[in-house]
Amino acid sequence: MRKLITAFYLFVVAAGSLAGAVPARAQTDPLPSWNDGAPNKAILDFVARVTKEGGPDFVPVPERIATFDNDGTLWCEMPFYFQMAFAFDRVKALAPQHPEWKTKQPFKALLQGDVKTAATAGEKGLIAIVEATHSGMTVADFETTVLDWLKTARHPRFKRPYDELIYQPMLEVMQYLRANGFKTFIVSGGGMDFMRPWTERIYGIPREQVVGSSGVTQFRLLKDGKSEMFKTAKVDFIDDGPGKPVGINRNIGRRPIISFGNSDGDLQMLQYTTSGSGARLGLYVHHDDAEREYAYDRKSQIGKLDKGLDEAPKWGWPVISMKNDWKTIFPAPK
Amino acid sequence: MRKLITAFYLFVVAAGSLAGAVPARAQTDPLPSWNDGAPNKAILDFVARVTKEGGPDFVPVPERIATFDNDGTLWCEMPFYFQMAFAFDRVKALAPQHPEWKTKQPFKALLQGDVKTAATAGEKGLIAIVEATHSGMTVADFETTVLDWLKTARHPRFKRPYDELIYQPMLEVMQYLRANGFKTFIVSGGGMDFMRPWTERIYGIPREQVVGSSGVTQFRLLKDGKSEMFKTAKVDFIDDGPGKPVGINRNIGRRPIISFGNSDGDLQMLQYTTSGSGARLGLYVHHDDAEREYAYDRKSQIGKLDKGLDEAPKWGWPVISMKNDWKTIFPAPK
Repeated sequence: MRKLITAFYLFVVAAGSLAGAVPARAQTDPLPSWNDGAPNKAILDFVARVTKEGGPDFVPVPERIATFDNDGTLWCEMPFYFQMAFAFDRVKALAPQHPEWKTKQPFKALLQGDVKTAATAGEKGLIAIVEATHSGMTVADFETTVLDWLKTARHPRFKRPYDELIYQPMLEVMQYLRANGFKTFIVSGGGMDFMRPWTERIYGIPREQVVGSSGVTQFRLLKDGKSEMFKTAKVDFIDDGPGKPVGINRNIGRRPIISFGNSDGDLQMLQYTTSGSGARLGLYVHHDDAEREYAYDRKSQIGKLDKGLDEAPKWGWPVISMKNDWKTIFPAPK
Repeated sequence: MRKLITAFYLFVVAAGSLAGAVPARAQTDPLPSWNDGAPNKAILDFVARVTKEGGPDFVPVPERIATFDNDGTLWCEMPFYFQMAFAFDRVKALAPQHPEWKTKQPFKALLQGDVKTAATAGEKGLIAIVEATHSGMTVADFETTVLDWLKTARHPRFKRPYDELIYQPMLEVMQYLRANGFKTFIVSGGGMDFMRPWTERIYGIPREQVVGSSGVTQFRLLKDGKSEMFKTAKVDFIDDGPGKPVGINRNIGRRPIISFGNSDGDLQMLQYTTSGSGARLGLYVHHDDAEREYAYDRKSQIGKLDKGLDEAPKWGWPVISMKNDWKTIFPAPK
């Protein structure tokens, strides 16, 4: 027995020397779609600091909370929020059951293909569209319509499924953070029920780590002994602007240590994140790449980034230039 | 080299035979504080079924969601909810700043040590107490008062810290479920902010897996560049009765496959859990042990279990008798 043990140790030592003899494999770049620059350096440095055991900035695993806005941060939001595209398509699909829409705005415009008029119908018009398409059914049925829509709908410019228009560099960031013990959450102004059916598949973020806007739901026990969650038309929570720290407190209960956003709606989330004690990082994605994606900021109707651009340097938040910092925008088509 | 590799394999084989030669270690009982009976058998059978790969009831790990009521299910709730004891003690601590309480009910009764009168002050009185003790401060400051209180407060009957009056058999269930890939959540009518500071330490349930009642919080950016979440007096959400499936949908977004409760306030959570498709299990803890803990059900003001007792047999929910099914109630004093 002793002989075997000795042989085993010899084997281990030999294997070790052998490994030393071959050239060490180059350490894999965790962010291959990022060009070297301030943003990727800030991310890499931050992760190194908070994961260094015994270091001054070490953060225990349970407190490694990372939050990501979705629209414009993890996936494209132009020419208008994808959830709006979904709602418009749903109006068309539901029109046969609503003859009154033929003469009623903003439905009339939508049904005539005049998305611009519909999109500018103001808050009241949009609420009417959301009510008509996002309530009066069960959560499960709603999710089915979302998944069905994703299978067939195509983005007007890129002619690809909407869930392929996600940002490859951000996928790498999320994966890198998770590999370093972070729990990644979505904190989006978009609808929670709209996102949950697909975030696990496309981002690796499970349903319970999706925080978003929501309507009031009701528990209904049915006569056949089954039960369902029913979506009412009443707004429960708007997870945007100052609502984002509230949503974080409500669904996570920990202050994030790193957050990513792209608009003024993410300002308070970044402030909340980076005003805590210890190592903190907030980053803004800046849409400045009209050629490969879109270029918009201070004057945009959607994803407006105005105050945030002024605040970023004051708070020390790196601003990610999609044009200069990202080698790739979207993953290659499947 | 080849010799070494051969020797290594021989070593592995030898080690394997050696292990086979000694008597196999008896499989550890995962629920040692449970007597054999219908409830523990139901739990063990359920876990075996949903974790058996290729079996008809197999459930993938991400869908293994377990929810637990807290008061009366994971810890004691008598002679009144522990959060109420906390609120009463806070009233006493804050009294010097509120001279008007000397003549104002229910504060007057509380300050005179007449908890019974205060506890029966009705909803309006209780809301006044909750407002006075649970709002007007930051979430962080509130959490500090909760933790400080737990350090010094003692249960009137058991003379032990409140957070030691947790149920040993339920600790074992949670640990057993987690060891089998379940994610364990608290879904309680109690305050989310009241529970989050200590659930990880005493139950192994992290803050983000605590669903509870809550007030409206506000994000406040301070002049010194710091920020805080402020607790207002406005009620946001009551996570009780039909609110429990709503809270589950809001914070988890998946229907649990196993749930534990002890009162009529858990009825809808158990219905929601067990009316889904596939293998499901709901269980009620029945307080029938006046000697070691308390005995109460249909007529109790706190933790009333009336309708639930009628529904349990109809739904096939095992009812756990604390007296007969549990060998131990609380963990041994530290």
